[in-house]
Amino acid sequence: MAKRVAIVGAGVSGLASIKCCLEEGLEPTCFERTRDIGGVWQFTEYVEDGRASMYKSLVSNTCKEMSAFTDFPFPEDFPVFLPHAKLLEYLHLYTKHFNLRKHIQFQTTVISIKKRPDFSTSGQWDVITETNGKQKSAIFDAVMVCIGYLTEPSLPLDSFPGIDKFNGQYFHSRDYKTPDVFAGKKVLVVGMGNSGVDIAVEAARTAKKVMISTNRGAWVISRVFDDGYPWDMVFLTRFLNIIRNSLPGRATMWLIATRVNQWFNHANYGLVPKDRSVMREPILNDELPGCIITGKVSIKPGVKEFKENSVVFKDSQEEEEVDVVVFATGYKASFPFIDESIIEVENNHASLYKYIFPPRLEKPTLAFIGFLKPLGAIMSVVETQARWVTRIFNGLCKLPPVNTMLEEVNEKKKHKLNWFGFTFDEVLKTDCLVYMDQLASSIGVKPSVPALLLRDPKLAIKIFFGPCSPYQFRLDGPGKWDGARNAIMSQWERTLKPMRTRVVEDTSSFIAYLLKALALFAVVVGILYSFN
Amino acid sequence: MAKRVAIVGAGVSGLASIKCCLEEGLEPTCFERTRDIGGVWQFTEYVEDGRASMYKSLVSNTCKEMSAFTDFPFPEDFPVFLPHAKLLEYLHLYTKHFNLRKHIQFQTTVISIKKRPDFSTSGQWDVITETNGKQKSAIFDAVMVCIGYLTEPSLPLDSFPGIDKFNGQYFHSRDYKTPDVFAGKKVLVVGMGNSGVDIAVEAARTAKKVMISTNRGAWVISRVFDDGYPWDMVFLTRFLNIIRNSLPGRATMWLIATRVNQWFNHANYGLVPKDRSVMREPILNDELPGCIITGKVSIKPGVKEFKENSVVFKDSQEEEEVDVVVFATGYKASFPFIDESIIEVENNHASLYKYIFPPRLEKPTLAFIGFLKPLGAIMSVVETQARWVTRIFNGLCKLPPVNTMLEEVNEKKKHKLNWFGFTFDEVLKTDCLVYMDQLASSIGVKPSVPALLLRDPKLAIKIFFGPCSPYQFRLDGPGKWDGARNAIMSQWERTLKPMRTRVVEDTSSFIAYLLKALALFAVVVGILYSFN
Repeated sequence: MAKRVAIVGAGVSGLASIKCCLEEGLEPTCFERTRDIGGVWQFTEYVEDGRASMYKSLVSNTCKEMSAFTDFPFPEDFPVFLPHAKLLEYLHLYTKHFNLRKHIQFQTTVISIKKRPDFSTSGQWDVITETNGKQKSAIFDAVMVCIGYLTEPSLPLDSFPGIDKFNGQYFHSRDYKTPDVFAGKKVLVVGMGNSGVDIAVEAARTAKKVMISTNRGAWVISRVFDDGYPWDMVFLTRFLNIIRNSLPGRATMWLIATRVNQWFNHANYGLVPKDRSVMREPILNDELPGCIITGKVSIKPGVKEFKENSVVFKDSQEEEEVDVVVFATGYKASFPFIDESIIEVENNHASLYKYIFPPRLEKPTLAFIGFLKPLGAIMSVVETQARWVTRIFNGLCKLPPVNTMLEEVNEKKKHKLNWFGFTFDEVLKTDCLVYMDQLASSIGVKPSVPALLLRDPKLAIKIFFGPCSPYQFRLDGPGKWDGARNAIMSQWERTLKPMRTRVVEDTSSFIAYLLKALALFAVVVGILYSFN
Repeated sequence: MAKRVAIVGAGVSGLASIKCCLEEGLEPTCFERTRDIGGVWQFTEYVEDGRASMYKSLVSNTCKEMSAFTDFPFPEDFPVFLPHAKLLEYLHLYTKHFNLRKHIQFQTTVISIKKRPDFSTSGQWDVITETNGKQKSAIFDAVMVCIGYLTEPSLPLDSFPGIDKFNGQYFHSRDYKTPDVFAGKKVLVVGMGNSGVDIAVEAARTAKKVMISTNRGAWVISRVFDDGYPWDMVFLTRFLNIIRNSLPGRATMWLIATRVNQWFNHANYGLVPKDRSVMREPILNDELPGCIITGKVSIKPGVKEFKENSVVFKDSQEEEEVDVVVFATGYKASFPFIDESIIEVENNHASLYKYIFPPRLEKPTLAFIGFLKPLGAIMSVVETQARWVTRIFNGLCKLPPVNTMLEEVNEKKKHKLNWFGFTFDEVLKTDCLVYMDQLASSIGVKPSVPALLLRDPKLAIKIFFGPCSPYQFRLDGPGKWDGARNAIMSQWERTLKPMRTRVVEDTSSFIAYLLKALALFAVVVGILYSFN
């Protein structure tokens, strides 16, 4: 009889998990609190308790070719970066195509997940759920937790002296929906993650004044990267990854700093990271420098204290008037339905092997999917996690001994990881690409560039020098997809299709080639000059 | 007795004209239709007939150091690029500092300007004005027309077949104020000038769909230019100007195309100009590529025809649904108060010597200030025009013979100039810098780099390699300003001041220099590779 798997949540991770269960001959049952699929990508006009929430203008930070599941490219007419409604539409297409909906029980909340008395031999779980006020219990052979990490806001008010005296309004970034709440106000955004910057930039359209307070600073990059190509298709290649991982850390940092400063000098814009040797997650925003140079947003140091109607920043005596404070201070891990003895969270760090398995469990029948923050798209990462997990559930893959797992977990802990996953400094060293390859190797789906070079050199070159797109992990091995090669060969076409809505005949001519030589010379001279 | 000068309009050109009259010992009387100074920069919530109108979010396209009058830098805490309210504030500061207000008669409309019977000897004008319904006539020795060219919209509906059948809403870009009019609508912007693109980008925040229709395409550049410095401080230097003007036209075009395509490939974004050998005015917009890559704005070819609820584009059979059309089709010249025999406008081209003087007039006592569209800030250009004009009025400068003037005017006509001024292709050849230098030479205020090199080499280098900022024209000669040298030496400080609101100690070290060598090598290899 097929093993029964409980899946908690029908967002990106949940959907991928259902699909992987089906592929591996398992019997998935997915429990979803809300009425529909999509998780964080299901936009609601109002914030709901216990659910992730996003603002109206949210657009994906990764492009459609990099954000796809490994065997299901986005339709070619979808935009390159996806407004949330388009991403949700894609999830609906995916759900329909793989017939996932019938495995989902909507409006069903998971109340508790407990080991069965015979867990040490059976690995089974008692799962209690609630639908319309009625509780139900069921036994499952395995559980996949797919609830994301954006549910419970972290609002460390203790770190902000005087906030109790502050007469203005304040709220967590999670409660933000549209910029009309800022009309005519003086706004302070505390924290410079992607949400904080997105909110500040939007606030600048209606507010009287907008400030972002950041202790650490950040590198800011644009979706519109080299020559206008999507940043992730340029940045996330196997070739560049090897270069980044072979150079000494400082050299990599310096190269990256030089590259990001080409767009704008981060020191001049008040954004430069405080400690450049530790590189944190970069911010993806196309509009921030334009807002700074037009005076709509200004960057401030960390908050020293709040007063009744104002804020004082570190290293400053001046008070700045403030009406509204948005705390873009992130989220904290929370698993209310699982016993703390099973998953312990300290300092937002859960000790999970490969960010997935609690290493001390007697049986590997509990997996956390999507508890990481890769520098790049999350979809193919969680799908690859689910592919590996389902093959461990059905016995085709094996976990290493407990000691090996604990060793790796403790090693990662030492690096003071944020969240359950990567911090950017670690990403730069081991990289989500390396992580993907590790999982893919375990599954047996890692593409071999040397082997391909003999068999299909064109493809090999695309895989090595081109964007490390998700389809690479469906070329061979279990779950092989016949469309994978074609999807890789046509990825740039699909990327450019929705933008090339006005095509003009190329008027470049032979003379252009002559001019190129001249320009190359000029550019080289220019560079030499600028390095003086 | 001081000569009396009538000045029509108290916008940027009018204010500069009043000030120059005072400097040259003339007696200015400025007539302003509205209640206050500022002209186009005086924002109104509603469009008013016969007045320029701008949208709420308008930000200057030129930075504060380049937008200043020649002897009055912007306050250092003003943003680098100026939201309209800040620019108006500056004009108020200017007015106050030079005590200009008492020379302005507000709420006074100029009804007619006619030659006096003895014009051929006296050069005098009869000026009829109207205040609160009462007309008044006065005699003036000279007239400066400073009404701008943004008053009368050009809406060539004949060029759009089917527009009479179109059931949706349509209006000229001049009637646009805020993007809420587009909420939930399918919007088409016709024409791709700066206003059209600004409106499209804003519409994308509220509209369901936004398209820009353009026959010609355009190069788009960002205010945030090389390393994040303002585009005009990098681009408009005497050094680069010499390079641009010495290279053959095609080479210049190609170099510019290469530079603008570095931000994003204009062909991939549907924006590439149709005929690259004729370069038109570039569009300044920081957000357009981000809007295109996220699918919020799409670029379409020219309009073939309108249908009841849709539009068909050239080279296409498909109909696209449209609810609102914005015609960003520019403005047309209009001087209702001056006889056509004096200033004749054909195809939007007025035959004016140096864009200022009607060449056939018996006496040079009528001048048009600000009837050009320089690639760069308008303020210092109109001020230099006014300096020259007032010195012609008081006899310190002379115009060449009529034939010489006519020759130049006809030469310019051949180049099919747009407006009263430059088209971009001409700007690139003769450039507004060359134009400024011509006027400055006539006045005797053109900075001499070779002479300065001996006297003040630091300053000479700033003037030659640095931004061609307005203060250069106050270093010497009539109207010399003692603060000019200091204003030039500190222009970068004033630029960076409002952005550096969070300062972090520089952590770069000796090792960085070693790394630079490595990176330089990598960059050169990269360039060679990209040119393969």
